[in-house]
Amino acid sequence: MVDSATAQAPGFHRFTVGAFEVIALHDGVITRDRPAGFVPNASDEEVGEAFATAGMPRDKLTITFTALAIKTPGGVVLIDTGLGDGGPPGTGTLTANLAAAGIQPGDVKTVVISHFHGDHIGGLQLKDGTPRFVNADLLVPEKEWAFWMDDAKMEAAGEAAKGNFGLCRKIFGPVADKVRKFAWDEEFLPGFTAVRANGHTPGMSAIRIASDDGVMMFVADITNNPLIFARHPDWQAMFDMDPAETITTRKRILDQAAAEKMRVSFFHAPFPATGFIVKTGTGYEFLPALWTAS
Amino acid sequence: MVDSATAQAPGFHRFTVGAFEVIALHDGVITRDRPAGFVPNASDEEVGEAFATAGMPRDKLTITFTALAIKTPGGVVLIDTGLGDGGPPGTGTLTANLAAAGIQPGDVKTVVISHFHGDHIGGLQLKDGTPRFVNADLLVPEKEWAFWMDDAKMEAAGEAAKGNFGLCRKIFGPVADKVRKFAWDEEFLPGFTAVRANGHTPGMSAIRIASDDGVMMFVADITNNPLIFARHPDWQAMFDMDPAETITTRKRILDQAAAEKMRVSFFHAPFPATGFIVKTGTGYEFLPALWTAS
Repeated sequence: MVDSATAQAPGFHRFTVGAFEVIALHDGVITRDRPAGFVPNASDEEVGEAFATAGMPRDKLTITFTALAIKTPGGVVLIDTGLGDGGPPGTGTLTANLAAAGIQPGDVKTVVISHFHGDHIGGLQLKDGTPRFVNADLLVPEKEWAFWMDDAKMEAAGEAAKGNFGLCRKIFGPVADKVRKFAWDEEFLPGFTAVRANGHTPGMSAIRIASDDGVMMFVADITNNPLIFARHPDWQAMFDMDPAETITTRKRILDQAAAEKMRVSFFHAPFPATGFIVKTGTGYEFLPALWTAS
Repeated sequence: MVDSATAQAPGFHRFTVGAFEVIALHDGVITRDRPAGFVPNASDEEVGEAFATAGMPRDKLTITFTALAIKTPGGVVLIDTGLGDGGPPGTGTLTANLAAAGIQPGDVKTVVISHFHGDHIGGLQLKDGTPRFVNADLLVPEKEWAFWMDDAKMEAAGEAAKGNFGLCRKIFGPVADKVRKFAWDEEFLPGFTAVRANGHTPGMSAIRIASDDGVMMFVADITNNPLIFARHPDWQAMFDMDPAETITTRKRILDQAAAEKMRVSFFHAPFPATGFIVKTGTGYEFLPALWTAS
């Protein structure tokens, strides 16, 4: 039972793209000590300074998680699932916020996955393996599937990376024959087109969402917090599997967003994680969209 | 009746300052053509460029309204009331958002007014003159009262300004003997101290709010949108009655906020209108605080 006298306003935020209604869904936040080597190609002093300039403590790393649900004429589409019920304290709030927006997991018609990291796929199942979005088709990037479901790639991976290969098997194994794979540049659902966004992972896809004269892009993890990595587009994050490709992808997509003055949604920007990109002399500024009541 | 399948998340946002719970309350938003002379001391081209850099259309002026309610051991304190039910379409949502946060107008123990413009005092009454916060003490800046309630000042004012003198009489006339006036630097309630912030109006007060080791400042209208006027601290806005004093006040308070790394809440920043100030080479950046779920 939610106590209206003390509860925070629910973590969803609606906006429109043409005839689609888009709902940003907060899946929580974690804060920990900023790891040494969070940005492998910048000094600790430079990184701390960038954190301070962004209004954050120098030595703490806060990561937020925001997925999207889109109400389309063909049903509700969910892009990425959050961490589910197996993540650290303070996470896994996606389904509660979805419910606050009037949508139950069984109402979701399609789940689209941008890439196979645990904060994007973890919510597909409960911890015990029970599927969560029981009426949904599952669509994933073909190159992401090809990489993470390849046993030879798993064997070749370092110990640290093996965990994510295992998670992919736990989550996708039971539904492998039902998963639909999409290619970059494919309009895999009416109005939804996959955009090449590899680097962070080998098959990551941004999703271009278009309806009538409205257009936006879910840019997934082309940056961790854009207050750091859009402002410093040449900085790598320790989570990026191919740092050079990550940076090429980041600049291509941010350039496009700035040129088209197109709304973007990040997975790791401060909630509601949606806004616009402006190019500056040295990088890019993420400008949160105005919160509106309707 | 709110339809949870379509309604926006309610326009309130909670955070804490020591033992106080602070609730940002959205009172709506208006958008109109940007008036010629919105910034009297900058060219139309410069202003349009600043709007574009802030991710906004060059030729549209959007103004948002965000008041604060604070739950203290002594009861609920409301700082500024929004426009009430007499404002333009899209405004006057404060009491609905207050109710969504679990507070009825009759629960408000104290109303504090920063200055006497209609978007700050309009909500004290319904359009027909019925008082709204029937159980609340009303506290106002003494210098603001002295100016706006002075008939000689009203006689001397231009036609455009006379309207606001009239509004002050309509609103404060019936309760004139019950209004309590506070001075700058006075702690007028436990934890609430008035801060000199004149310029925008002759008696405007920012409010420093302190509890335990927490501190923040409601900075009222030391800027209109800080994305424009904190970045360009020497720019006047057409709403500022004493432009030179406005700018002196703005810099003093923003310098203090930056030096103390103190949370601030603006009345006219994008909702939830709260964050931190960082000094740059040319001005100040407003960095929205991270949205948190608890």
